[in-house]
Amino acid sequence: MSNTEYSGNIRNLLYPRSVAVAGASASPDKFGHRVLFNIVHNGFKGLIYPVNPRESSVLGLEAFSSVADIPGEVDLAVVTVPPVGVKQIIRDCIQKGVKAVIVITSGFSEIGGHGAVLEAEISEMARSAGLALAGPNCVGLVSTHADLYCHMMPFYPNRGPVAIVAQSGSVADMIASRLGDHGLGTSHLISAGNEAVLNVGDYLEYLAGDDRASVVLAYIEGIRDGRRFLESAKKLTARKPLIVLKAGSTAAGARAALSHTAALAGDDRIINSLLRQAGAIRVEDMEEMVDAACAFNNQPLPRGNRVGIIAPGGGWGVMAADACTQRGLDIAPLDRATLDKLDSFLPPIWSHGNPVDTVAGVTGHANEMVQALLESPAIDGLIVLGMVGGLQSIWKYIEVGSGGKVTTDGLARGAMHHFDTYYREMMTLKERFGKPVAVTIILPIKAEIMTETASRLTRETGTTCYSSFTQAVRAYAALNDYAAYLRQIDSGGRSI
Amino acid sequence: MSNTEYSGNIRNLLYPRSVAVAGASASPDKFGHRVLFNIVHNGFKGLIYPVNPRESSVLGLEAFSSVADIPGEVDLAVVTVPPVGVKQIIRDCIQKGVKAVIVITSGFSEIGGHGAVLEAEISEMARSAGLALAGPNCVGLVSTHADLYCHMMPFYPNRGPVAIVAQSGSVADMIASRLGDHGLGTSHLISAGNEAVLNVGDYLEYLAGDDRASVVLAYIEGIRDGRRFLESAKKLTARKPLIVLKAGSTAAGARAALSHTAALAGDDRIINSLLRQAGAIRVEDMEEMVDAACAFNNQPLPRGNRVGIIAPGGGWGVMAADACTQRGLDIAPLDRATLDKLDSFLPPIWSHGNPVDTVAGVTGHANEMVQALLESPAIDGLIVLGMVGGLQSIWKYIEVGSGGKVTTDGLARGAMHHFDTYYREMMTLKERFGKPVAVTIILPIKAEIMTETASRLTRETGTTCYSSFTQAVRAYAALNDYAAYLRQIDSGGRSI
Repeated sequence: MSNTEYSGNIRNLLYPRSVAVAGASASPDKFGHRVLFNIVHNGFKGLIYPVNPRESSVLGLEAFSSVADIPGEVDLAVVTVPPVGVKQIIRDCIQKGVKAVIVITSGFSEIGGHGAVLEAEISEMARSAGLALAGPNCVGLVSTHADLYCHMMPFYPNRGPVAIVAQSGSVADMIASRLGDHGLGTSHLISAGNEAVLNVGDYLEYLAGDDRASVVLAYIEGIRDGRRFLESAKKLTARKPLIVLKAGSTAAGARAALSHTAALAGDDRIINSLLRQAGAIRVEDMEEMVDAACAFNNQPLPRGNRVGIIAPGGGWGVMAADACTQRGLDIAPLDRATLDKLDSFLPPIWSHGNPVDTVAGVTGHANEMVQALLESPAIDGLIVLGMVGGLQSIWKYIEVGSGGKVTTDGLARGAMHHFDTYYREMMTLKERFGKPVAVTIILPIKAEIMTETASRLTRETGTTCYSSFTQAVRAYAALNDYAAYLRQIDSGGRSI
Repeated sequence: MSNTEYSGNIRNLLYPRSVAVAGASASPDKFGHRVLFNIVHNGFKGLIYPVNPRESSVLGLEAFSSVADIPGEVDLAVVTVPPVGVKQIIRDCIQKGVKAVIVITSGFSEIGGHGAVLEAEISEMARSAGLALAGPNCVGLVSTHADLYCHMMPFYPNRGPVAIVAQSGSVADMIASRLGDHGLGTSHLISAGNEAVLNVGDYLEYLAGDDRASVVLAYIEGIRDGRRFLESAKKLTARKPLIVLKAGSTAAGARAALSHTAALAGDDRIINSLLRQAGAIRVEDMEEMVDAACAFNNQPLPRGNRVGIIAPGGGWGVMAADACTQRGLDIAPLDRATLDKLDSFLPPIWSHGNPVDTVAGVTGHANEMVQALLESPAIDGLIVLGMVGGLQSIWKYIEVGSGGKVTTDGLARGAMHHFDTYYREMMTLKERFGKPVAVTIILPIKAEIMTETASRLTRETGTTCYSSFTQAVRAYAALNDYAAYLRQIDSGGRSI
């Protein structure tokens, strides 16, 4: 059976009508308890069958001594028993006609020796039976649209448009958690584990066709089948963005990967080339991955790589121009008409070019400036660094306290009030012109006040307000890379 | 007069006994008001002389029609009048015997043409008189130990050990603000502006000898005198760390720098070589600069580049090993004795090497593990990624709410309680063994709860608890780079 044919069975992993938990236990110290608990207490509507030969019921549900004894059909079986018992469970599942199995148990190829032998045996059994087997050595999976939290950790992401496939369940959980901080939910969270049967390529192929996922994130330590990965990833990226965090790019990282999920990290240049061919966006760390995912969720794709930068004075325009250029964005010259428009209301000392540095003195006209740039045929999108210049307009909030000392308590609030209006207007302009506008706050006030404002704006507007321009630029660059890839395949260009 | 001789006069800039403000105004819209206001209302103990020919008093202080009319000695004059009036003020200052001047006014070499001509004239006047002139086109300076906030922005950093020299006042303010979020104060904040006379090299030479600064941060767009910079920076780095954020490394960034402070950004490879020779640590962005500054403030320097990583399961060890290796740290093999010690209490499936991946199952022994590694002669310091594994021990906080659905409200609190204890013990071990221990929290709980805990621990322990391992690794690498430089100069090795 070719891997491609598993795609149908992956549906049984993610949208099962019934789930058996082999190793279900009443003891909260056991994973067999926790997985069952998580399935039971998160709204799953299907049938749940604890399997444990020594119990008649677990968590108030009738328990069965083996999968074979379950009266009804079983779409998915989850295995949490010790390694030595796994083979028998798989055998029972195959006999029962179960279509999908998740093996959470660890102690297989990641420890080498007899573990590797055992994994090979299980893999062979599953493959000959066409059984879609996830794991072993994984934390399970979450499928929010099925209310299925078939997962050994106490972590329950909300429903949303982002799918996560990871060769580390713990990394997947953290990604989903950080997305949640930005108000972005998860569609599927899949811990791939040692990939004895199903691998990242298989999951990607499935996700290409599942419209509940509109952005796909993959954490990868090693690609087991390059050709399979490339084919699946290309199918996926033709329809939705794929953001990849590839670890194990150094010798020390590769050694650690081997002992983690027995993954062979591979030559980093080959990985880069593979990802480029696949149209995947490679990110450097988890924070960048999350920022990029948010950008795909709430920004239009740019129609070209010419970006305008609005800087509120200081060195911000310089640093943002560097960051953009390093990521393939073009700080394009402005056209005459746009320059004239800006000249009509900016103070004479403005930079007269891109970045549009308004110098510290500017107070008003912030959104006229944004609009002028969005109207420009020379600009495909904006990075806006708000609002050091605006600090001028909030001097009125400065007070002198007792003892003749200055107090700035009102200043931060005043500044955030101004920024709030500015930001909402920019998000409206973004929609109106259909060009991406990535905004970050730059103000020397307490980070917690800025973060609070940024979180509130993110929550209330459904967009992402960044807290550093590095974040904004990286996220914008991810949009740009994907847009460029789509243009290339649309024009029939070879990606290889 | 050679630049070196300005060092004495820079003391007048930073610790003046009397300050004149030329252009002092009653109108809050004018910088001449704001600078005076900031000096008056932040506890400055010296004499303050507003200078304005059209006013008899400003902000309740007697005003003088020119600097020449001031009865007493004037250590420092601040100039905020329009460009056309600056020359006369400088002339008056020289005649009066003022030793230091800050020209805040902009409209000089950064706009080219007549601005550049004017700047050359002022520069020539100041140089022939031995006048220490800062600016023009700067936001002023802050010298917290003198309670001097001679600065046009409404920003007042607290007193502390970090000096900031910047070719952007706005960037300097943001750096100081972010340091403040980590509980770290500022000793001096110097906005260098166009550097008509005093340049970054001059300030660095001065700061080398001022013990109120124990770490120096520099934001640079262009180095005007490479030889001077190198000499000063070497003097400084022999005594304290210098962290440099160099902008304008791309063509677009360099163009923006030219219009910002007329700085010539220079070839980035030459800059890198210069900074390496100077023993300066180059960082990529402001966030990295702040994290590194905090590390120098509260971590011992490592005695070598061999780092131990403690990872709580998942891909974290893999990613941290990559990040460390990419920054020149050695994920050294563990010695037999340490391996045996760890084997005595870690579960059999632990990684048996460095990174020490404890796999998800570990609950206790966290600090025994930290201690075992710190005791090892094979390890110079630690990066600790806490506490996914510890999540196991907090399952007891899981509750089932109404409607049979799981609730995790108590879980985050329970997790943070565990982490709190773990973290404090680690900081004690860090002191005891005199090896750096950089710690980050890794838990799929709300970022705001983690951030709150991290901020509290930072505040209460005077150490920095990071919120991503990228931050922790970058900060550790800065310590390591500086320690390596010191070893090299101690051994008489040439840094060139």
